[in-house]
Amino acid sequence: MTVAAQPMAAPGRGAVAPLAGGVALGDGLLGRWQRRNRETTIPHGIERLETEGNLDNLRRLIGESDAPFRGLVFADSDVHKTLEAVAWELGHGEDARLRAFYEEAVALLARVQDDDGYLDSAFQRADREKERWSDLTTGHELYCAGHLIQASIAAKRALDDDRLLAIATRVADLIVRRFGGSAAEGYPGHPEVEYALVELFRLTGRREYLDVARAFVDRRGAGWLGRGGFGSSYYQDDTPVRETAIMRGHAVRALYLNSGVADVYLETGDESLLSALRAQWDDMVTRRSYLTGGTGSRHKDEAFGDAYELPSERAYAETCAGIAAMHWAWRMYVATGELSYGDFFETALYNVVADGISEDGAAFFYSNPLQLRPDHVSGQQESAARRLDWYYCACCPPNLMRTFASIEGYLAAARGNELQLVQYTRARIEAELEGGRVALDVDTDYPLDGRVRISVIEGFPGAALALRVPAWASGHRVSVGGGAVSAELRGGALRLPAVLVAGTVIELELDMPAQVLTGNARIDAVRGAVAVRRGPIVYCLEQADNDVDIDEVEVDPARPLAAGQAATPLGPVLVATGARRAPGGALYSAWQARPEASDRPIALTLRPYATWGNGTAGAMRVWIPASTG
Amino acid sequence: MTVAAQPMAAPGRGAVAPLAGGVALGDGLLGRWQRRNRETTIPHGIERLETEGNLDNLRRLIGESDAPFRGLVFADSDVHKTLEAVAWELGHGEDARLRAFYEEAVALLARVQDDDGYLDSAFQRADREKERWSDLTTGHELYCAGHLIQASIAAKRALDDDRLLAIATRVADLIVRRFGGSAAEGYPGHPEVEYALVELFRLTGRREYLDVARAFVDRRGAGWLGRGGFGSSYYQDDTPVRETAIMRGHAVRALYLNSGVADVYLETGDESLLSALRAQWDDMVTRRSYLTGGTGSRHKDEAFGDAYELPSERAYAETCAGIAAMHWAWRMYVATGELSYGDFFETALYNVVADGISEDGAAFFYSNPLQLRPDHVSGQQESAARRLDWYYCACCPPNLMRTFASIEGYLAAARGNELQLVQYTRARIEAELEGGRVALDVDTDYPLDGRVRISVIEGFPGAALALRVPAWASGHRVSVGGGAVSAELRGGALRLPAVLVAGTVIELELDMPAQVLTGNARIDAVRGAVAVRRGPIVYCLEQADNDVDIDEVEVDPARPLAAGQAATPLGPVLVATGARRAPGGALYSAWQARPEASDRPIALTLRPYATWGNGTAGAMRVWIPASTG
Repeated sequence: MTVAAQPMAAPGRGAVAPLAGGVALGDGLLGRWQRRNRETTIPHGIERLETEGNLDNLRRLIGESDAPFRGLVFADSDVHKTLEAVAWELGHGEDARLRAFYEEAVALLARVQDDDGYLDSAFQRADREKERWSDLTTGHELYCAGHLIQASIAAKRALDDDRLLAIATRVADLIVRRFGGSAAEGYPGHPEVEYALVELFRLTGRREYLDVARAFVDRRGAGWLGRGGFGSSYYQDDTPVRETAIMRGHAVRALYLNSGVADVYLETGDESLLSALRAQWDDMVTRRSYLTGGTGSRHKDEAFGDAYELPSERAYAETCAGIAAMHWAWRMYVATGELSYGDFFETALYNVVADGISEDGAAFFYSNPLQLRPDHVSGQQESAARRLDWYYCACCPPNLMRTFASIEGYLAAARGNELQLVQYTRARIEAELEGGRVALDVDTDYPLDGRVRISVIEGFPGAALALRVPAWASGHRVSVGGGAVSAELRGGALRLPAVLVAGTVIELELDMPAQVLTGNARIDAVRGAVAVRRGPIVYCLEQADNDVDIDEVEVDPARPLAAGQAATPLGPVLVATGARRAPGGALYSAWQARPEASDRPIALTLRPYATWGNGTAGAMRVWIPASTG
Repeated sequence: MTVAAQPMAAPGRGAVAPLAGGVALGDGLLGRWQRRNRETTIPHGIERLETEGNLDNLRRLIGESDAPFRGLVFADSDVHKTLEAVAWELGHGEDARLRAFYEEAVALLARVQDDDGYLDSAFQRADREKERWSDLTTGHELYCAGHLIQASIAAKRALDDDRLLAIATRVADLIVRRFGGSAAEGYPGHPEVEYALVELFRLTGRREYLDVARAFVDRRGAGWLGRGGFGSSYYQDDTPVRETAIMRGHAVRALYLNSGVADVYLETGDESLLSALRAQWDDMVTRRSYLTGGTGSRHKDEAFGDAYELPSERAYAETCAGIAAMHWAWRMYVATGELSYGDFFETALYNVVADGISEDGAAFFYSNPLQLRPDHVSGQQESAARRLDWYYCACCPPNLMRTFASIEGYLAAARGNELQLVQYTRARIEAELEGGRVALDVDTDYPLDGRVRISVIEGFPGAALALRVPAWASGHRVSVGGGAVSAELRGGALRLPAVLVAGTVIELELDMPAQVLTGNARIDAVRGAVAVRRGPIVYCLEQADNDVDIDEVEVDPARPLAAGQAATPLGPVLVATGARRAPGGALYSAWQARPEASDRPIALTLRPYATWGNGTAGAMRVWIPASTG
């Protein structure tokens, strides 16, 4: 089998250990997404790095281009993230186009790097706007370094290629010299390097990388970054990490930071970090996240808003924030062994993150609102009305690339002699447990279908299996060798002792009827409305699927939904019968004079949220007014 | 009596004519606001122009300060707007502090002005960032010039002082030379100068000012300003004025532009302009405005959003946009003679604009949301949680100053031999009608009370009176000399022929019970909630007035509201009985499992929206969930 993408190695103190490779996706949804990524998205991205100037920015430093510097100050990070994706994919199998990019980019970075290890084209150029390390608040040098380090780890793990690692290590060594030690000060305005450095520590065993990551975490919260336009909270620099119980500020920054904090915890065992992370996690999932797993509701500062400030129509819910939430969820799971963290991971993956890319794999949403009105007035670069084929601030597309290229790294983990399945998709999973080696074939159409069939290919006596049962499952059944077994569901996990014996077949069946959901009464934006979810898949009304104006309807929440004829990659369309037309009337009117909904029942067609916007452009809404009379 | 503030002269083609002065406020709400403005707000503002560097920016140009340039590129406009307010107030009566500022500022501007008439400290300074007229898109030079012109008109009308007018005329002449004529190109990125130039035409009779204003209107919409960060629509430069039927882009820009377009119409009679304005007005009042008269829902680009995109919690609803909407509403009334335009004017005045200033007159809101959550996360300069005593971008405070200093200019207008009363407050109103002179005393506690008593002091046979009856009035009665008269209500107006005879008393009684309102079904943000309005005054729940958590309650919309004991400057508090506690529950849950409201009835206290935030900081909401069971 191919070498599997494995972004995270087993940490020093995890409750569970990520697998050391050994997972290969089959022809399930995730496998198809990974193939689309390899065949379409990554080649598209490589082309854009050429046309948008990211590669020329590097070439000009060594006299191989006379193009002006283009893009934002963190333009290099798009190269690094693409390189990471390409490295994982070359690990899955050779490809001439991917290989050509890889070789050129690695050689280019090697030649561009300064003698002291510095590597950042925005600050190496003669016409730079600022000096190196002079503006940690907005300069993004450490952010770019983090992505370079993560790319180098992918190259090492997937290809056993040391060349990029040599470059990244010199960058990391420079960071250690510049920012390490108790006398130094400073930390990044955009967190990201923290978890890259911890992973580099895991790969190299060099403790100074962990130490400087920890220092970045420890120093943060002193207000040292300044207030900028949005205040210290934008940078999560208003309160120390250990004293913070809410999610605030720029969402991607907050979520990357928390992933880094989790990784520092996983190597230091500093419980005050885990305790702060648990409080913040609770704040996110109980007060500051969308049904889609999206986070960061505000456009202006791309920030988490107030508790329950979750507007559908202007949900910012950046694609990168969805990916960052997956990173954090995975680390919370590794830190605690609680399989239920996989729930938020899959919610984000199949909704806000999947929404970020078109069905054909070559166009992207930056923001992922839960509603688009007809005649939407955008006027902004990060259009919410249609996926664009690239962005001036192109953080999201290559982030999707590296995510799909390494998604098999998040399916399972090991705990002693127990293999834990966190995400279900068609895959072959091989793992070394404490007592020996196991290999399984997972066969399922999940998340379109709740049935998961696990065939044990190789096992040993005492090898156990744990299965995540998502909170949305309205019921579940499990059988071993054809015989139903009863296992207590605890913390979202079913534990099956000693079942991993060659030849055994374990079957899990999760009930996933379409469910009608309501929001907390404090979410003003969804009051009086309901949403539909089937398994982890959130549904929406799209205008193109419906004849009636979807902004003037209401549904009867008590009526069951039926599966429609049409299928989408994320499940069948659903049909709500007994809906009604509900006219608007005056902008504001006396309550006694409010218009009545029509008596004539109509049928509405719903589709998986992440599949909207692939056809005719038009209105969309996840939350649908509920009839109350 | 004192000379009255009169920002707008009778136009060439208005259906009605603003009065040429002759209005003096008495001790009603508007009179008290005007006194607060004179005694507190303007002196506070003058002090801030000193401490924030606005005056030093001018002084340094003539060697009288060595302070660095401070503030935004349009810092001069704060001086001009304050000067306008001071000129109106000196017209009301002398004051040593106001006079000292006025004399110093006028002398300073005279000395700073260049030989060619140019006057803008941000571009005159040696260390300027850009050359003159090189960036009309963001440079704000024409915007500042417009405010200087308006200040000079106030100085001429209120004080008969030509000094500032001489300065402003030289600026205007430079604008005519630079931008006039069919061969010239360009128009302002921030409209404002258009209506200043038309008014300068009215004052001076010099047609070239009108011509260049018209040229700015005619040229706009060609995309000449560029896309900037938010697209051409941000600047109302996406479509020509005459082809535009929706409100879009930066709200203050859009509303100042439309005021200027109305003024160009009022002098040219170009019906294609009025037709476009009518369509845009209709769009604003039926699809894109808050119950408070606030407009511009988006924070990111301070823009009108999509139709019905009217979130309460992040309503931007800038104070300046409220003022600009008053300017536009007044001009639509003057253009059409339709008194009902006064409805939106008063809605904005008593709600979004009144909210912009503290009860003590020395602190200001920039944005005026309809909801503030507990533990609000701001992180931004334009705090929505408490009024600040000044802003780095200080457009709103001096805009409030000039508004209150000239508010009597918007009470009445003349149409032939008919005097029209548009806004009701305690005042003496003297006017020259076609057939002679009239003088009235208006006695009323409006908007706290719907009774208006008009005593005719001077009149003549045939002098008529028209009275605006607001759309919110659930009933009305009018009497002349103690005898009830029946007059047809048409277009929001009651016409009383030949009643303006000395000694006659006309009494209007408008019914203003507290009303429970609902929003159009397309306003997702207020679905399932109701708001309370009494007369033109919108009410809100403020946490400090209530023991129960105001984010977990619901009211019974069918129950009448009672007046409470406490009074506020805008009316009594109101009490909603039979409300219930409605718990939140999980962030998202099955519709069948939604929590039930408590059975125990509670009472909630509401206060006029504009009075919130003057005591203990805390949560506030205009829209309150309605019980449906």
